[in-house]
Amino acid sequence: MTAPLSPLPTPDDIVAAHDRIRPHIHRTPVLTCDTLDRKTGARLLFKCENVQKSGAFKARGASNAVFGLDADRAAQGVATHSSGNHGGALAYAAARRGLPCHVVMPRTAPRAKRDAVLGYGASVIDCDPGVVAREAALAEVVARTGAEPVHPFNDARVIAGQATCVLELLEDAGPLDAVVAPIGGGGLVSGTCLALAAMAPETRVYAAEPRNADDAHRSLKAGRLITEDAPDTIADGLRTSMKDLTWQVVSRHVSDVLLASEDEIIAAMMLIWTRMKIVVEPSSAVALAAILNAPEVLAGQRVGVILTGGNVDLDRLPWMTARTGETR
Amino acid sequence: MTAPLSPLPTPDDIVAAHDRIRPHIHRTPVLTCDTLDRKTGARLLFKCENVQKSGAFKARGASNAVFGLDADRAAQGVATHSSGNHGGALAYAAARRGLPCHVVMPRTAPRAKRDAVLGYGASVIDCDPGVVAREAALAEVVARTGAEPVHPFNDARVIAGQATCVLELLEDAGPLDAVVAPIGGGGLVSGTCLALAAMAPETRVYAAEPRNADDAHRSLKAGRLITEDAPDTIADGLRTSMKDLTWQVVSRHVSDVLLASEDEIIAAMMLIWTRMKIVVEPSSAVALAAILNAPEVLAGQRVGVILTGGNVDLDRLPWMTARTGETR
Repeated sequence: MTAPLSPLPTPDDIVAAHDRIRPHIHRTPVLTCDTLDRKTGARLLFKCENVQKSGAFKARGASNAVFGLDADRAAQGVATHSSGNHGGALAYAAARRGLPCHVVMPRTAPRAKRDAVLGYGASVIDCDPGVVAREAALAEVVARTGAEPVHPFNDARVIAGQATCVLELLEDAGPLDAVVAPIGGGGLVSGTCLALAAMAPETRVYAAEPRNADDAHRSLKAGRLITEDAPDTIADGLRTSMKDLTWQVVSRHVSDVLLASEDEIIAAMMLIWTRMKIVVEPSSAVALAAILNAPEVLAGQRVGVILTGGNVDLDRLPWMTARTGETR
Repeated sequence: MTAPLSPLPTPDDIVAAHDRIRPHIHRTPVLTCDTLDRKTGARLLFKCENVQKSGAFKARGASNAVFGLDADRAAQGVATHSSGNHGGALAYAAARRGLPCHVVMPRTAPRAKRDAVLGYGASVIDCDPGVVAREAALAEVVARTGAEPVHPFNDARVIAGQATCVLELLEDAGPLDAVVAPIGGGGLVSGTCLALAAMAPETRVYAAEPRNADDAHRSLKAGRLITEDAPDTIADGLRTSMKDLTWQVVSRHVSDVLLASEDEIIAAMMLIWTRMKIVVEPSSAVALAAILNAPEVLAGQRVGVILTGGNVDLDRLPWMTARTGETR
């Protein structure tokens, strides 16, 4: 990204973000499911960001960035790179404020996510998968248009926006022993950590990650940031690695990174669809898959679980491609 | 059925049913969706029985029948025939009261529905599709076991239970110009009519039906009950025809029967999944499909829509079989 990094958001920044974005987001429900409680031995409180505006929690961070711009800067528009949901969220927020928006997307992004960006009137710039290709394409767009870059996670405005999710979860669910959220670039997990450190420091944070994209897990074990370019996982929202800002928070605050295999992610996704009757995308199911995998960590506890999004191609579901042997 | 027919439930019966079943059912949420309001020109208030116990509104009628039995009669157990959801619901209610339960099911019922019946500990008796085969198989079971037959819809106890759904909808959504509910045997529609006639007589009732199984539509036009045996529609919950009790109510109270083709049902189901992020079965989607088909009937009105169930085989979704050319 070309913009200088901002410092981390303060508790006041998070509260201000919530006030700023409230007119532009849904207060999403918190659901429970007795069957999943029995299977995990924990009391799970699911924060349903799959029904958030734009279909993902990303509407929070994007709205905070877009509606925080002063009028002159805003007039130039906004730009980002995204595997999908941040792009759709930025396009949503920009359309709501009436600004131009440019989204660099890898060709492998789900069609539903690409269609969402186009549906909000933003322009899509195709690129190859992988962080290096994405960032090069974004730099070109920013240089050409003068748009304000809004990084999908390594941006204090975005982290403050994502932090508002756990504020609502605490208000609606009451005190929690732990919160589990999936980790890709770490924007949601960082926001969650910063909010809880200020408002409920006794609540532990666990990140959930696909075993096929376990850079956060390896980073935490090694004590230094390890990145991976375009790992292969069906959890398409989690194919990115952390950067300096999010790593700074995750390395200090996250208790552990819990892993799940591709098969476990698919099974957890089917469990959520069939038992909770809600549509979530594979990245959302990673949290439940990781909990099912490590029941001893959370047994008997009250655990917030962030279901991050619900944007899937219905004619290309993971158990369909698995069944017919198509490549993903 | 071998049991004598009861008279229709009174308003007091419906209120008593609600009190009786309240400990055994979920108070399901009422959801709205701005996108679907824009597409239909109406304000739609969706009563989400897909998250009801056993995954369908049928838990209401089955629980009312099971928990209304006196102890001696209950000890003999209960039995029914069902394309799926009533069977699951009766098995659920019987298990909750600790009674034996026998369910006659056509071999074509979705696997998820069959598994649900077995999962609640009931026994499944296979039969050929069609009402005649079902009723013969049930008569045999009742003769053999002495179980109390609980018809899926032509039973005043069941109709009173289904009527409780619209009571909650009215309480949570406020006054409605109309309610749209799918019609198979007519238990839900009859209960809805009887409840509204007593509590909100200004609210019209529309039944929604697959064009491929349009016996209710033809009956209403002809002014006499026309039945059809095992029609071919993906809306597997709506393959039955009315009987005397439900026809008596439907013929007097329903304003019209709105139709939807198989393709329209599938498209409406995908719309609900992608825009509302909830899992509903094809029968539930018939209501939205019918509304989309006849926007002039409901434009500008506040319309309750009953989403009847969420039990689907995730590896056998209608757009998958449509895409690959498999037979249904």
